[in-house]
Amino acid sequence: MSLTRNTLKDLRALAQKKFREEQDLFLIEGFRLVTEAADSDFEFIEVYHTHGAAEDHLVKALLHKLQRKTRVTLTTERELESFTDTVQAQGIAAVLRQKHASPEALLRNNGGHSIIVAADAVSDPGNLGSMIRTCDWFGVDAIALGVNTVDLYNPKVVRSTMGGLFHLPIIDGVDLPVLLSKAKSAGYTVYVTDTEGTAHFDRLKYASKSLVVFGNEAWGASEAVKVLADARVVIRRYGAGESLNVGVACGIILSSMRRLFN
Amino acid sequence: MSLTRNTLKDLRALAQKKFREEQDLFLIEGFRLVTEAADSDFEFIEVYHTHGAAEDHLVKALLHKLQRKTRVTLTTERELESFTDTVQAQGIAAVLRQKHASPEALLRNNGGHSIIVAADAVSDPGNLGSMIRTCDWFGVDAIALGVNTVDLYNPKVVRSTMGGLFHLPIIDGVDLPVLLSKAKSAGYTVYVTDTEGTAHFDRLKYASKSLVVFGNEAWGASEAVKVLADARVVIRRYGAGESLNVGVACGIILSSMRRLFN
Repeated sequence: MSLTRNTLKDLRALAQKKFREEQDLFLIEGFRLVTEAADSDFEFIEVYHTHGAAEDHLVKALLHKLQRKTRVTLTTERELESFTDTVQAQGIAAVLRQKHASPEALLRNNGGHSIIVAADAVSDPGNLGSMIRTCDWFGVDAIALGVNTVDLYNPKVVRSTMGGLFHLPIIDGVDLPVLLSKAKSAGYTVYVTDTEGTAHFDRLKYASKSLVVFGNEAWGASEAVKVLADARVVIRRYGAGESLNVGVACGIILSSMRRLFN
Repeated sequence: MSLTRNTLKDLRALAQKKFREEQDLFLIEGFRLVTEAADSDFEFIEVYHTHGAAEDHLVKALLHKLQRKTRVTLTTERELESFTDTVQAQGIAAVLRQKHASPEALLRNNGGHSIIVAADAVSDPGNLGSMIRTCDWFGVDAIALGVNTVDLYNPKVVRSTMGGLFHLPIIDGVDLPVLLSKAKSAGYTVYVTDTEGTAHFDRLKYASKSLVVFGNEAWGASEAVKVLADARVVIRRYGAGESLNVGVACGIILSSMRRLFN
C-alpha cells in the first residue's frame, strides 16, 4: 500500500518542466480533471487515490471505470499530498502521457467557419490557462502554442484551463511563422493583436476562416509574426488602465468574432 | 536604520484582513504601484525603501517627491522582504490609509453616459483584481463591492488591479440591494450577469446609465440582487467549457457596452 521512494521521487519531479519533457508525462489532480481526462483520448499511465477518496460513490465509480484502462494505485494521504500541488487534490491524481500533434493537422477538416487561436510567447501559466478556458467556452477549433509559450503541461496551466485541455486540440512547440504561412495558403485570414494596431476589433468583418494570435504579456507578438498579419487588431482603451490581461483580451475578441459569425 | 520589532510585526500583520481592518491601513509594494499611489488622493502613512533601490534615479525622484507628503524610512533588504509579499517589491513599499466612500456618491455627477460595475461576492483575489483592471481599461465610472466580496485591500487584489485601484472610485462594503434600488431611482438600468439569463449580452441595447453586476464564481449573483435586475444577461456558450472566468466575462460585457455607446 505504500509507494516506493523512487516512484514518489519521480512523481514529485513532474512539477519540473525538464523532467516532464524527458518523460513525456504530466500530472493532473482532483476529481473533476481526472473525470474530464477519462472522457478524453489522453493516455493514462497510472491513477493514484486515497482510501478516503474512494469512499465517495462518484470517485468509486470513476476508479472502477479507470481500472479497465490503466493501473489504479491506492496511496496514503501523506504520500499523495507530497506530489500534488494544491490542497484540493481531493485524494485523486493521475499521470498521463503528453500529446504532441503536428500543426498541419490544425488546418485540415475545418469546413465552413473556423477559428484557430495562437499564443506567441504567452509567459504566465494562469494567463495561458485562462486563454484555453476561454477558447473552450467559445468553441474555438484548435489552439497553437508557439515555441516560447509557457509549458502547456505546467500544473498551473493544466488546472486553470478548467478542463479545456481535454476538450479541444492544443498543439505545442509550434513554429508560428511557418504555421501562419501555411494557414494563409489554406485560406485563413491572420489577425494579430497589437496595442499599436489600427484595426478596431469590433469593426472588423472577420473571415469565415480566422486565425488570431495573442502575444507576450509585456512585448506583444514577435516581429516575425506581425509581418504575416492580414490585420493588426487593437482593443481601444477608454480609461486610464495601462494594459488588458491577455485572457481577457482573448475573451473580448472571441466574443466579437462569434457575434459576427452567428 | 533598523525598524523596531513592533513596527515589523505591525507591517507583517497587514497581510491579514482582520488587522488591516482594525488599523484601516494597507500595504503596497513596487515602484509602479507606489508611483500610481503618489499621483492619487490616497493618504500615505509611511514609505519604506532600501539603500539599493534609492540608487535608481527614478526611485530617488519618487522618494524626493514623497518626502513632501509623508515619512520616508530607509530599511534593509532583509527587513523589507520580511513584510512584502512578492519577490519583486524592488526595494520600495508603502503603507496607505484605506478609503471608504458612501455608495450614494457613485450615483451623483454622472452626466451623460455612465457605467457602474458591481461585484456580488466575488471571492478570488485575482479575479477581483482582474475585474478592476478591466474596468480601468474600459473607463468605468465607479465600482461597488458587495459586502461578501473579497477584501479590496488584500495584497493580491491590490497587485492584480495593475494600478486600477488608484484610477477610479471603488466603494467597498456596499449593501447591493440598497444600492441597486437607489440606482434605479436615479435612472440607472440594472443588468445582472446570470448563466441562466435570457438577454444575450450583445443583442441588448444598453441604457446610457447602466449598472452591471457580476456574481460569485460558483453561484453567480444572489437572489436579492437578481430580483432587482432589469435584464439578466448571459454570454452564450459555443464550446464545451463549463464556465467563463468572471474577469473575462467582465471584459466581454464592457467591450460590448462600449461598442454600443460609442
